[in-house]
Amino acid sequence: MKTLIIVSHPDIETSNSQQFLKEALAMRKDITYHHLETVYPDGYIDARREQELIRQHDRIIFQFPFYWYSSPPMLKQWQDTVLIEHFAYGDQGDALRDKSFGIVVVIGVAKHAYQMGGKEQFSIDQLLTPYQAMAHKTGMKLLKPFPIYQFAYMTDRAKQSLLIAYQQYMTLSDVDSLSQRTQWFIDRLSEESAVFELEEIQHMIEDLQLEIEELRLYLDQKG
Amino acid sequence: MKTLIIVSHPDIETSNSQQFLKEALAMRKDITYHHLETVYPDGYIDARREQELIRQHDRIIFQFPFYWYSSPPMLKQWQDTVLIEHFAYGDQGDALRDKSFGIVVVIGVAKHAYQMGGKEQFSIDQLLTPYQAMAHKTGMKLLKPFPIYQFAYMTDRAKQSLLIAYQQYMTLSDVDSLSQRTQWFIDRLSEESAVFELEEIQHMIEDLQLEIEELRLYLDQKG
Repeated sequence: MKTLIIVSHPDIETSNSQQFLKEALAMRKDITYHHLETVYPDGYIDARREQELIRQHDRIIFQFPFYWYSSPPMLKQWQDTVLIEHFAYGDQGDALRDKSFGIVVVIGVAKHAYQMGGKEQFSIDQLLTPYQAMAHKTGMKLLKPFPIYQFAYMTDRAKQSLLIAYQQYMTLSDVDSLSQRTQWFIDRLSEESAVFELEEIQHMIEDLQLEIEELRLYLDQKG
Repeated sequence: MKTLIIVSHPDIETSNSQQFLKEALAMRKDITYHHLETVYPDGYIDARREQELIRQHDRIIFQFPFYWYSSPPMLKQWQDTVLIEHFAYGDQGDALRDKSFGIVVVIGVAKHAYQMGGKEQFSIDQLLTPYQAMAHKTGMKLLKPFPIYQFAYMTDRAKQSLLIAYQQYMTLSDVDSLSQRTQWFIDRLSEESAVFELEEIQHMIEDLQLEIEELRLYLDQKG
């Protein structure tokens, strides 16, 4: 599976979160990191080139800071320029059909603000509805969004967890599958360069234990 | 009441609907028509100038074609550049507080497509949630959105109705108030340059009749 991460950030060099995510992807040849403001510094997007890029990948990710409950303007321009009729929708417009689509959104405000009665009043799901509608119109399979709240206040431990979840979001065909996540760990552990916090491995083993307990309970009830 | 219409359209000269709306506003000195792509052809927005413009008006309108369930990139850039902390939100960020805020959105698809089970799956209200969240954060009073569906297929009669509703949306402090709409008609009828379809006046009189009937019914029930 090949993943295209379309990143939009008007000032990415100063963004610690974006730099962290970029480094998390180093050396993976099944992932294309594509920062629009770097590729198109004058703001003019080569629609043909972008369409070709889309065709070469199976998973499309939008990654951006959450400014006014949406993306920076450059990603919107990309949508309006690249995802045109007869390519993305309408007659013979099936270039995105059956690809998976995810959203990595970096948010400065705390998670609990995004709910009815919270400071921001609306949930992330509600605010991302325009992207859900886009996935629907283009026939893409929508992944659960990947929100990153208040990166600046994260502990090193939290960042390590984030890094693993982020890499899995980009590479697993079923992001929620326990067996895929387990296999991912086994693969990483066998790599020479692997550096893991023991705690992460502990979490993984605990997840597996929980799954086994649930299966036992189910069998007991059946018997 | 002074109204600022912030229009974003990348190619406005070719848009019949936008030209129609622009002409509908001719010669009104309480309305400022502000097309971003014309004012800032190189894409760089003068945030101070825009903030001053906001301060001079009581109603803020976003007017744009509905591309990928949102505005063109230029309006998003305007939001990100102009509506900054300490101006639009946060400490002393009360420049928009208590202004009214409306959205005129021009939509190429039919109205019935925008609902659960419809072709677009989501309602206009759902898709405009990011703007609702913006109005909430900045303390603006949200007007009902003003969607214009399939302008290209509208009859002349429908366009005449649209023109009146649009002018009222821009100028009435309470857009839904029957007494304000009535007064608006009386004012216009006394203008020398007034040109109305008889039908529109008939609609207005019918609305008034209905109101009177409802009041009579209410009085009968009480008596």
